[in-house]
Amino acid sequence: MARLAPGTISDAMRYATTGGKRLRGFLALESARLFDVPFAQSVHAAGAVECLHAYSLVHDDLPCMDDDDLRRGQPTIHVKWDEATAVLVGDALQSFAFELLADPDAGDATQRIDLVAGLARASGADGMVLGQAQDIAAEAAGRALSIDEITELQANKTGALIAWPAEAGAILGRADPVPLRRYAHAIGLAFQIADDILDIEGDVAKAGKRLQKDAAAGKATFVSLLGLDGAKARAADLVEEAEAALTPYGDRARTLKALARYIIARDR
Amino acid sequence: MARLAPGTISDAMRYATTGGKRLRGFLALESARLFDVPFAQSVHAAGAVECLHAYSLVHDDLPCMDDDDLRRGQPTIHVKWDEATAVLVGDALQSFAFELLADPDAGDATQRIDLVAGLARASGADGMVLGQAQDIAAEAAGRALSIDEITELQANKTGALIAWPAEAGAILGRADPVPLRRYAHAIGLAFQIADDILDIEGDVAKAGKRLQKDAAAGKATFVSLLGLDGAKARAADLVEEAEAALTPYGDRARTLKALARYIIARDR
Repeated sequence: MARLAPGTISDAMRYATTGGKRLRGFLALESARLFDVPFAQSVHAAGAVECLHAYSLVHDDLPCMDDDDLRRGQPTIHVKWDEATAVLVGDALQSFAFELLADPDAGDATQRIDLVAGLARASGADGMVLGQAQDIAAEAAGRALSIDEITELQANKTGALIAWPAEAGAILGRADPVPLRRYAHAIGLAFQIADDILDIEGDVAKAGKRLQKDAAAGKATFVSLLGLDGAKARAADLVEEAEAALTPYGDRARTLKALARYIIARDR
Repeated sequence: MARLAPGTISDAMRYATTGGKRLRGFLALESARLFDVPFAQSVHAAGAVECLHAYSLVHDDLPCMDDDDLRRGQPTIHVKWDEATAVLVGDALQSFAFELLADPDAGDATQRIDLVAGLARASGADGMVLGQAQDIAAEAAGRALSIDEITELQANKTGALIAWPAEAGAILGRADPVPLRRYAHAIGLAFQIADDILDIEGDVAKAGKRLQKDAAAGKATFVSLLGLDGAKARAADLVEEAEAALTPYGDRARTLKALARYIIARDR
């Protein structure tokens, strides 16, 4: 049977998870490291969130969604293979994310099921998928969003899946999740503001994806609402907020603090 | 924000999970009942497998996949809404399946994570998604499959997600999974043979979906390979096999035995 489906799905899954910044996976590893959780354990949560994120990009790039042909500097899955492969690869990557969390090395049973519960919630109809639907609805509504609306939309669309790996670290470390949750909330929003700035100021070759699509589509963004300088100032405030949230961890959190600064300084 | 995405995703999720035979959910409930697992517990596994199955149908019906406009007697999601909604609804239903399994009422932490592991495996790139990819590859290869190939393909495409709820019953009942696994393997294959027979002999109004698509596409099926009588005889043998596997449970398994018989007698 191997000759009938000669590894297409697994090849395309590997392709879809190659490259990228690995921001979410890094966040899981670094949050867990605050509590001395071994890499061999936290790497499961890190892999899970990267697979989940990769699936969302593969589906988001589909012609019926954002219709993107370039991602991480490479042709998107439906361009390199076809749409059916893109649908299936996304579906399989979502399954695989949960399979990784269920691995006995990912934690004890309680930790693992807590990770599953959080990831399912963050990615589903009250989290990431809701945000994507809100994004589509906003475009269809044909009016500019307010700053509150766009903040809520982005908290769902990208914030939930940035918050989860930070919280995963606390679950694995059996620690209070509140400081990491505050940190993640701030960097999640800063990340999106930085994305909007990158969409205007960025370089396609470095970003590895099409830019200035939002402006062309007349979509409200943090930049269109706050202006370029206003957006940069807001992002810088959020980074300070994120760094402040990490105070309880002192110097142990220096990498997470550097990550917060990277988020608004990045060029991709 | 509610006005921007006025419940479209949750409406369409409800629509996608309405109707149908609920075979997989019933199987979870009845398998669990063998071991006196309360309904309030097993209903989570039952709901999870129905959501998982519903997502697979929504994505399978997409224009880039099987391109079906009718399902359970109603327009498919991408016809009633649009393709983007169908992609997102399928994605959200998959998340929701795992959310249901993570619910504290679904079992203790070990049972819940075992359910998650099994469902993730059955639905992913080594199970259902693999079967769908094999199905697409078989069509593209443009040659008829052998009986062994089609049996393997169907074991992945539909068998894995019929086996899981039966096994879920054993997990919840802390019981030996082997007899239920044997039972599920037999009814899974019988189910697919019956589907192929229905595709030839069935009535669209009763089936609630388009029929005779496989024959029109020149696809190898159990009927094209074994003949109509041969396929019926094979399905009847499998039902006997399934009933025999339930011997350890005596009269407690009478509903599961009746289910095996229904699987080849159904008209939808």
